[in-house]
Amino acid sequence: MIQVYTGNGKGKTTAALGLALRAAGAGFNVYIGQFAKGRLCSEHKALKKLKNIKVEQFGRGCFVKNAPKQDDIISACQGLKKAKEIISGKKYRLVILDEINIALKLKLVSIKDVLDLIKHTSKDVELVLTGRSAPLEVIRLADLVSEVKEVKHYYSKGIRARRGIEL
Amino acid sequence: MIQVYTGNGKGKTTAALGLALRAAGAGFNVYIGQFAKGRLCSEHKALKKLKNIKVEQFGRGCFVKNAPKQDDIISACQGLKKAKEIISGKKYRLVILDEINIALKLKLVSIKDVLDLIKHTSKDVELVLTGRSAPLEVIRLADLVSEVKEVKHYYSKGIRARRGIEL
Repeated sequence: MIQVYTGNGKGKTTAALGLALRAAGAGFNVYIGQFAKGRLCSEHKALKKLKNIKVEQFGRGCFVKNAPKQDDIISACQGLKKAKEIISGKKYRLVILDEINIALKLKLVSIKDVLDLIKHTSKDVELVLTGRSAPLEVIRLADLVSEVKEVKHYYSKGIRARRGIEL
Repeated sequence: MIQVYTGNGKGKTTAALGLALRAAGAGFNVYIGQFAKGRLCSEHKALKKLKNIKVEQFGRGCFVKNAPKQDDIISACQGLKKAKEIISGKKYRLVILDEINIALKLKLVSIKDVLDLIKHTSKDVELVLTGRSAPLEVIRLADLVSEVKEVKHYYSKGIRARRGIEL
């Protein structure tokens, strides 16, 4: 099954992390590839304690903004290549491509490659794609799409991302 | 801060689980009180491996439908009482009341009691409330509200909840 978590609200990556936790609890192997991110957040420390979860990051140390560099493109393409290997290897029951929609929006990876990846995902693999602005083509292929809408956010009050909560 | 995850889409409880994972990774103590649920899902096995997360359930072995029984009300009220103690005890940095909105909708707990709990939550505590149909009064008091909208769901194709993915 293909699951997509998109929209402008808080909760997309955390929903994917929750899925990882549940799948790991069931004894499944979980792979998390994080795109357009490079900083180790608090969740990595907890994820390390769960043996059947593997996390890899494909980005520079900061969240990619509007002007991606050559290195961002190289990292993201490496991530997509790795995701292909992971999916075809069938070791992992749950594969999460975190912020892949952002990588698509920034054109770090091509939509054709991502659609190919989705189409070649076996039914035994749960593939989860997160990030705002999921393209329509991805939504069309997905079996489940949740749009996380921001109704209210404390960022608008000037509160910045906090360790252990957002980071 | 008060965070609310509501809406009819998949991802509310899993987002809260992801928050728990991240907070635990930062070394915070996390309390998860699950309302209107009583079945142990796969995530509990993984949560047990994370020492600073405590989970308690306040419900019978099945998800409460439209006709709650006396036992459902007693369990939910015990859960809310426990949540008050947990919040005032200040041992826990993150407190998640999973499906509390459902408990409110089914009138298992009173809106007045939940609003009181929110108002008496110290700023040092992150309180997370999940479940569809969050009441307006709760939304008004919250600092962050994400509405998870169902755009597509495989349940509509007749696929049932699966171990390690939904259960």
